[in-house]
Amino acid sequence: MELPSGFTAHVGHIGIRDDSTDFAIVAASGVTTASARFTRSRFAGPSVEVSRRSMADEQLRAVVVVSKNANVATGPTGLADAEELAERVGDLVGGMATDVLVTSTGVIGRPYPMDRVRAYLDGIAGAEWTDRFPVTDATVVASAMMTTDTVPKVAEARVGECRVVGVAKGVGMIEPDMATMLAFVFTDAELPAAELDRVFGSVVDRTFNSLSVDTDTSTSDTAAVLASGLAGPVDTAAFAAGLEDVCVSLTRQLASDGEGAETLIVVRVEGARDDDQARRAAKSVVNSPLVKTAVHGADPNWGRVAMAIGKLSDDVDIDQQAVSIRFGNDEVYPGVPDEAGLESLAEYMRGDEVHIGVDLGIADGAWTVYGCDLTDGYVRINADYTT
Amino acid sequence: MELPSGFTAHVGHIGIRDDSTDFAIVAASGVTTASARFTRSRFAGPSVEVSRRSMADEQLRAVVVVSKNANVATGPTGLADAEELAERVGDLVGGMATDVLVTSTGVIGRPYPMDRVRAYLDGIAGAEWTDRFPVTDATVVASAMMTTDTVPKVAEARVGECRVVGVAKGVGMIEPDMATMLAFVFTDAELPAAELDRVFGSVVDRTFNSLSVDTDTSTSDTAAVLASGLAGPVDTAAFAAGLEDVCVSLTRQLASDGEGAETLIVVRVEGARDDDQARRAAKSVVNSPLVKTAVHGADPNWGRVAMAIGKLSDDVDIDQQAVSIRFGNDEVYPGVPDEAGLESLAEYMRGDEVHIGVDLGIADGAWTVYGCDLTDGYVRINADYTT
Repeated sequence: MELPSGFTAHVGHIGIRDDSTDFAIVAASGVTTASARFTRSRFAGPSVEVSRRSMADEQLRAVVVVSKNANVATGPTGLADAEELAERVGDLVGGMATDVLVTSTGVIGRPYPMDRVRAYLDGIAGAEWTDRFPVTDATVVASAMMTTDTVPKVAEARVGECRVVGVAKGVGMIEPDMATMLAFVFTDAELPAAELDRVFGSVVDRTFNSLSVDTDTSTSDTAAVLASGLAGPVDTAAFAAGLEDVCVSLTRQLASDGEGAETLIVVRVEGARDDDQARRAAKSVVNSPLVKTAVHGADPNWGRVAMAIGKLSDDVDIDQQAVSIRFGNDEVYPGVPDEAGLESLAEYMRGDEVHIGVDLGIADGAWTVYGCDLTDGYVRINADYTT
Repeated sequence: MELPSGFTAHVGHIGIRDDSTDFAIVAASGVTTASARFTRSRFAGPSVEVSRRSMADEQLRAVVVVSKNANVATGPTGLADAEELAERVGDLVGGMATDVLVTSTGVIGRPYPMDRVRAYLDGIAGAEWTDRFPVTDATVVASAMMTTDTVPKVAEARVGECRVVGVAKGVGMIEPDMATMLAFVFTDAELPAAELDRVFGSVVDRTFNSLSVDTDTSTSDTAAVLASGLAGPVDTAAFAAGLEDVCVSLTRQLASDGEGAETLIVVRVEGARDDDQARRAAKSVVNSPLVKTAVHGADPNWGRVAMAIGKLSDDVDIDQQAVSIRFGNDEVYPGVPDEAGLESLAEYMRGDEVHIGVDLGIADGAWTVYGCDLTDGYVRINADYTT
């Protein structure tokens, strides 16, 4: 999948941790209008700190990704390293440090091997632009970002003459405020910065912020959109729809590739007091280890869904007599299926994707969240991963 | 371990679900002063509803436990069944339905096999008191309460002439507001109801409500203390200390026997703005799947502890520069151990009990919570358990 016009990339191997590809820059041929959202973690890393500064003018010329080392909890050294990286990548794209979004993902608590980073960047600096940034395939960029991801995540949409192309990575430590999730969307559409930011914020809320693999929020989460404007102005509503398509697709890909995941879980809560309550209820279901293991066992255990809804103990307007629960299209509570129904449900739950629907019977609030089952694989991956 | 004076018990097999012991009554020879705490779930079962009524006068004569069926989400039938059970057990102890604490644990969404329950209770009704309630061993009671528990949980303390004996069950669906956790403490001490309730509430907060196996809150949690008064008055402070010893011991036993658990995790947060912040931070650490799997892998991965603290994104007074983290007695952040230190830490983490200490460096708030590692066993138990 080609990057939209105005963007080319560099990917490489610095040797951050092992011998896999661990470095990517997506460079814009000029200044782009940009919007970004970051982790809200109180242990946010220096990459996030430096990138927040870069977003002050809502303009970017490049995104740089270091994978295999998150550069988090590394103190003043880590901050200096992130600043130097921004400075050097700024030079490479003919801009300044504040034109660069710095992102980083991997192990926490270890400084970058800066000698190797410097030597590598010195090596690129000599080349012409087209040799510096020869990559035009978004899948190659997505592959370079991977840590424990098993597949690269890319998605695209067309909006009139414009293209919207997204890449993402992230499989664990993924919850609410985004997690070790990096997602970048590139477009050649032209939009005012304020409009781009408003649209992106709302889309991020319904997609990346509605994704949970394991409730753990990363220190490094970053989602950004860069608009080169080369394909000219775009209808905002149409662009918003295209952007949402891309981000929903990336979100579903992220959930499906959650650490150890075998089943994508989509939870839709309707009939809530408001959207916020619907979101909290949906999150409670998708995050419940008992629901996640039930899905893994292909068991239509609606009692665990009821339990997860019941956990919202401060929501006194939730009345168990008014709640209904569905797996797929089949109601399982209060109308409990018969034996044949249960068997066909178990069959449904052996699929790659399980939809759980809840109606709270209060008002019109609704929200959809995305997650995955909890498997032996998740435990093995995270018990065996060493610092 | 003998029950305190004034209490004897009956255990039996009704055939609620399979052929294991599934029924217990602890009967008092007279009226006891009592205090109880219940799940806050919005899907609380009818057992909890009936028991709340019984607690209105702060007096009980019996606790009944049905295990293997939670009688939850069973509609009007379930409520009628719970009421009938209270009525019949009230008759058996020479009291009324409101003298009985009804508790229930097991599968959600199935009605009790009431024919069998009735036949069984009719069978006991003919016997003399000493044949109805022949059991004096608390361990036998604790065994009858078990579902997927692998060991019965009992604990005792002596306070002057008085004894405090506790029994508990619960291995999964255990979090904050207590979970499919049932815990009963019997004492022959004499205390005013208001004092017993105040002391018990505060102890429950620091013990059962500070326990988390999997963040899932049950629909049936109940903790209660019954005081027969037969050993006479007691010093309240001394009683509170004894009660806390018993409940801490039960809490540690519950965490150690968490579904699939191999390691008890104790998280102590100090230096917080207040106790509430300390508790939230400690819960965030003990509930993190990445921390739990790291402990399972005996990996002193303090980055994941930092991540879990960072999740408290609204606590803007948490400053990562002021935080320190310990495993056991060894600081791991900001003073990172050397290779030899990491090796001895890994050795420490292979033990049965891992202590994680966090100092937020803000003020004097402190809290301790109890949990367990996340293992393949947890996944297998809960994926294979069927409705």
